[in-house]
Amino acid sequence: MIIALKDTSLVKEKQNLFNLLNSFSIAFQYIEKQNIVVLPKFNEPSIIKNQPVVESIYEIETSYQLASNVWKKKTSFDVSGIEISNSKFNIMAGPCSVENEEQIYKTAEFLSKNGIKFIRGGAFKPRTSPYSFRGLGVDGLKLLHKAAQEFDLHVVTEILDLSLLDDVYQYADILQVGSRNMQNFFLLNELGKIDKPILLKRGMSAKLNDWLLAAEYILSGGNDKVVLCERGIRSFDPMSRNVLDLGIISLVKELSHLPIIIDPSHGTGVASRVMPMALAAAAAGADGLIIEIHPEPPKALSDSQQTLSFNQFSELLLNLNTLLPNLPYSKTETHLGSPVLKLQSL
Amino acid sequence: MIIALKDTSLVKEKQNLFNLLNSFSIAFQYIEKQNIVVLPKFNEPSIIKNQPVVESIYEIETSYQLASNVWKKKTSFDVSGIEISNSKFNIMAGPCSVENEEQIYKTAEFLSKNGIKFIRGGAFKPRTSPYSFRGLGVDGLKLLHKAAQEFDLHVVTEILDLSLLDDVYQYADILQVGSRNMQNFFLLNELGKIDKPILLKRGMSAKLNDWLLAAEYILSGGNDKVVLCERGIRSFDPMSRNVLDLGIISLVKELSHLPIIIDPSHGTGVASRVMPMALAAAAAGADGLIIEIHPEPPKALSDSQQTLSFNQFSELLLNLNTLLPNLPYSKTETHLGSPVLKLQSL
Amino acid sequence: MIIALKDTSLVKEKQNLFNLLNSFSIAFQYIEKQNIVVLPKFNEPSIIKNQPVVESIYEIETSYQLASNVWKKKTSFDVSGIEISNSKFNIMAGPCSVENEEQIYKTAEFLSKNGIKFIRGGAFKPRTSPYSFRGLGVDGLKLLHKAAQEFDLHVVTEILDLSLLDDVYQYADILQVGSRNMQNFFLLNELGKIDKPILLKRGMSAKLNDWLLAAEYILSGGNDKVVLCERGIRSFDPMSRNVLDLGIISLVKELSHLPIIIDPSHGTGVASRVMPMALAAAAAGADGLIIEIHPEPPKALSDSQQTLSFNQFSELLLNLNTLLPNLPYSKTETHLGSPVLKLQSL
Amino acid sequence: MIIALKDTSLVKEKQNLFNLLNSFSIAFQYIEKQNIVVLPKFNEPSIIKNQPVVESIYEIETSYQLASNVWKKKTSFDVSGIEISNSKFNIMAGPCSVENEEQIYKTAEFLSKNGIKFIRGGAFKPRTSPYSFRGLGVDGLKLLHKAAQEFDLHVVTEILDLSLLDDVYQYADILQVGSRNMQNFFLLNELGKIDKPILLKRGMSAKLNDWLLAAEYILSGGNDKVVLCERGIRSFDPMSRNVLDLGIISLVKELSHLPIIIDPSHGTGVASRVMPMALAAAAAGADGLIIEIHPEPPKALSDSQQTLSFNQFSELLLNLNTLLPNLPYSKTETHLGSPVLKLQSL
Repeated sequence: MIIALKDTSLVKEKQNLFNLLNSFSIAFQYIEKQNIVVLPKFNEPSIIKNQPVVESIYEIETSYQLASNVWKKKTSFDVSGIEISNSKFNIMAGPCSVENEEQIYKTAEFLSKNGIKFIRGGAFKPRTSPYSFRGLGVDGLKLLHKAAQEFDLHVVTEILDLSLLDDVYQYADILQVGSRNMQNFFLLNELGKIDKPILLKRGMSAKLNDWLLAAEYILSGGNDKVVLCERGIRSFDPMSRNVLDLGIISLVKELSHLPIIIDPSHGTGVASRVMPMALAAAAAGADGLIIEIHPEPPKALSDSQQTLSFNQFSELLLNLNTLLPNLPYSKTETHLGSPVLKLQSL
Repeated sequence: MIIALKDTSLVKEKQNLFNLLNSFSIAFQYIEKQNIVVLPKFNEPSIIKNQPVVESIYEIETSYQLASNVWKKKTSFDVSGIEISNSKFNIMAGPCSVENEEQIYKTAEFLSKNGIKFIRGGAFKPRTSPYSFRGLGVDGLKLLHKAAQEFDLHVVTEILDLSLLDDVYQYADILQVGSRNMQNFFLLNELGKIDKPILLKRGMSAKLNDWLLAAEYILSGGNDKVVLCERGIRSFDPMSRNVLDLGIISLVKELSHLPIIIDPSHGTGVASRVMPMALAAAAAGADGLIIEIHPEPPKALSDSQQTLSFNQFSELLLNLNTLLPNLPYSKTETHLGSPVLKLQSL
Repeated sequence: MIIALKDTSLVKEKQNLFNLLNSFSIAFQYIEKQNIVVLPKFNEPSIIKNQPVVESIYEIETSYQLASNVWKKKTSFDVSGIEISNSKFNIMAGPCSVENEEQIYKTAEFLSKNGIKFIRGGAFKPRTSPYSFRGLGVDGLKLLHKAAQEFDLHVVTEILDLSLLDDVYQYADILQVGSRNMQNFFLLNELGKIDKPILLKRGMSAKLNDWLLAAEYILSGGNDKVVLCERGIRSFDPMSRNVLDLGIISLVKELSHLPIIIDPSHGTGVASRVMPMALAAAAAGADGLIIEIHPEPPKALSDSQQTLSFNQFSELLLNLNTLLPNLPYSKTETHLGSPVLKLQSL
Repeated sequence: MIIALKDTSLVKEKQNLFNLLNSFSIAFQYIEKQNIVVLPKFNEPSIIKNQPVVESIYEIETSYQLASNVWKKKTSFDVSGIEISNSKFNIMAGPCSVENEEQIYKTAEFLSKNGIKFIRGGAFKPRTSPYSFRGLGVDGLKLLHKAAQEFDLHVVTEILDLSLLDDVYQYADILQVGSRNMQNFFLLNELGKIDKPILLKRGMSAKLNDWLLAAEYILSGGNDKVVLCERGIRSFDPMSRNVLDLGIISLVKELSHLPIIIDPSHGTGVASRVMPMALAAAAAGADGLIIEIHPEPPKALSDSQQTLSFNQFSELLLNLNTLLPNLPYSKTETHLGSPVLKLQSL
């Protein structure tokens, strides 16, 4: 249940409500930023409703509360003027790992020319094997940040561990929580306390309920800028790195107000399969895409097989440009520029 | 390996080849209809190549041979003038079960008015519980056939057991093999001997390799009219009946020449989720759709929850009509009529 | 709900009950053999209870009725004097496929010397690829039957298709339904009408509910001799052919009265892993095992990798002999002889 | 490849080897503690073999090196005199969460009377929902430590985040990495640098390869005290919280030298199913068990449903005592005392 409170000046009345809840031994949480109280299902809503400080109550059946659209219909926020919400289609692109200045500048320039507003790139890489390239660390963050500034882009990068939060916070505009960290509750907790948007990837075998509860950790800390990202789930056929679950888009929209974007790079694992699934994601109603690109994919130090070249990405943009206006979703794609580079470089 | 033979008149030379293969104790199969020989990987292809009856050989690394696109680039056949192939987009629709004359006639009329050429409907239903409605049996087949004839439609219906083959063959234009039968090898074997197209649904947990080998059973019997149908795979989240694996479309096209259509009705299990996934399937490159519709979905005796109403289906057609020409696949959608009924009935 | 009826001579009273149920439009099923009526959940049990022909009623919440242990506490039947039930531990063993007389006679002799009462062997093999060895057919059945008779064994063999029922019925003592056929409802239906026991393997991705409903098909036909067999489920790690789900044993025993045996050969896919999982199955409370053995595993025409040699099987028997009396289940293992061959042959 | 070096005094020769490897641009790692060099597959082993500092080389085909049993046959270490290895069977037990002094003292006393040497308990709990009880924090750690000291037990507790390492290190004898953290590489990295044993739980959908590579992170840091723990994998049937994959035990033993213990509490999710699977784990060759117990399971603040009462646990111990000596594994169970409490308390 969510209780929306009246005017924050009603200090005494608010305390009375808290005392009432305490008298029922209810574990509740007051979120100052939104002036609301969150608590588990409560069987006598009328007692609460009658409290003078209460504006309205939302009875929510699911275990997640703040992530539910019973309470809130739309999440919308902006990143330096770029709106991220259910009614926009945003594209984020860049290399798996930041490797060197040339690579990241080339990529930033290319994205900028194509009207893309978000550059992604990893500085600390979660690698299955300890012997794989693990990223440039803080130097990578700085490079990414500098290139983004130069080309008026916004940085999306992974926060791999709580100990890196200060650095990542400084250089990133959107902090990504990777699949392997979707249930790193200590990290989620801290991310609930910051004021930058969080891109929360779905865990490899996370149920929707698990995922929305992970979002709830962030939301209940007061940070209401959460975007979900589906990136493929574990399944039984070794022919495919993951199975990209596009059906989850409709489910998220039925149950939550959080925007959802799709990662067809990890979701397919093979560059030639990225475009069809990127288009499919748009057609299924996704609010955006995050895509791995590299000036020279075969030389990429990580995820080489699933990374698009600039030309492949330009072709994808062209196809998205044609597709998006012909879909039955009232989204505007303000941030998808005309892929001029393609015409030059092909 | 597939050996394409020259002129069928070279009887003696053919026998020599067979003798040669026998001398190596190779289990091979001669398919008269295509005048080819199929055999497992063979390490000395030159010996075979030199045989006078041999026109060309195809060395195929996968366990499926005839389903591989190393050998054949495109499957294309027609059903009474309607082409089914990788370069067409076909829509099949109809109720889960044939229930009565009114239901099936209404559906047939509606489909016909909307330019749809294939009506689907179950007469023998595979139900998880023995206490559920199991279909009208042969009477259902007859109803379906009559309604199809009246409205110039073609019948797609499931062949549930070998013992029903004569009846189903008589009344169906395309015989569907259900998920639960994908590895019913006795049935597949017999379907290899008939001359009508087979719609082969993917098993609930079938790997692509299993699926193409199931197709191989049919193909190796001489029946080369096989269409694959993805209908959702079993996964871990009870929130969704199945996970529709649209990524498999690209994989099928990389490895095989068989057309693949998508069943978003079973693939989502909920009517409101069918349209997004139907559009996504098209955007991912599918060669068609098979969709459950009913004049009054809430009254449907089976699959009620996932069945579209006529209006919902019309809306889907309108959206497909807008979407399909804007996709980067060189498919023609000759069989997708203008959904006139929508304008009338809404 | 299951309604147990009084004395079958109350013909008129029984008809009255049927009329009553019909008046509520309830789809019910009368099973003559057990003189019971099975129907879905019914909200006014008292009306039924008051009918003179009714002895007692069992209200069952699950979708399966006859498979539920709300109604019946124990399934027990015998095969020529050998009891199969929850309080016995039975072992079935033999080759994947019957290959020739020598192979099957050697195996039968070996089993007999070791006190094993059931020989398994496939005559019609469900093979993923059409190019693999598919069994000797009816000749295989005859060989198996003859060998079994000679050595006083009972035959367990798969019924792959309805069209083979007459032959398989004639030569088998227990008819096995394979994983791929678990939801072959036409076949299950017919097996409900015969009087021989059915070994029902779990489908590759069958939920317990699906499985018990498959059993319900057989039970509701009147055949109450059903044994379940877990053989591994599909999972995500290609390191292992299947994941053997031993936890299902407890679940089956909580919910059903059907005995359950385990197939560690398919459940592991590798001979060296069979023994640990066979012992684990016993320790988890299984009612028996079905194991693939062969006089010369490397020469087996199918499943060679997972087949035990006679020595390996003897070692397993020795270990089972030691283990079984030390488990907290009140099972007797009357059919587990002393593995004398081991001492001779090692 | 692993290169075992001679005498550590050969400083110059060692540097020569490093220079050689550098000249090939090989990313290698020197582990001082074991005086070995780890590197990826290298195609010209003879060049390395000839280096004077090289004692022997181990060519390892898998992506994990130090976790492979090509190199090392057995992991064995002791915790204050208690050996943990492939030839022991150790039991760890205790509540899901440390809740209060009485609860943890009662549990410690009970364990001690039963000869158990390890007490488990959570102080920081990873909860799917932010509104669930998350543990007592450092106070919980202190309580656990004090109770363990009082009753001569050793503490097993989860390290949930790197920021907690100092506290957890101080109070724990074995640090547990939970399923959700199995691929928290930052954490694994740091655990490689400490000198206390790590209990590494398998991720919910981790392949064996992922799991052994996670272990490799710890091992390659120099910490060679790693124990694996299987706790159930995610699967498709909502009837069961997880599927306990006992087959993985044999696989681990085929490929690695790391001991593996089983957690049937999480692996089944229901108290009544814990004993059968605990016995099955032992029969499958596990090197121990970790089990949730509580003085009053219905009152437990977390995992109540799957927690054993003292009596249930005593019964399990009795059955294990009977079972373990009758298994074909040459393990000694020195730490499994006589469950005297059972006789007193029943």
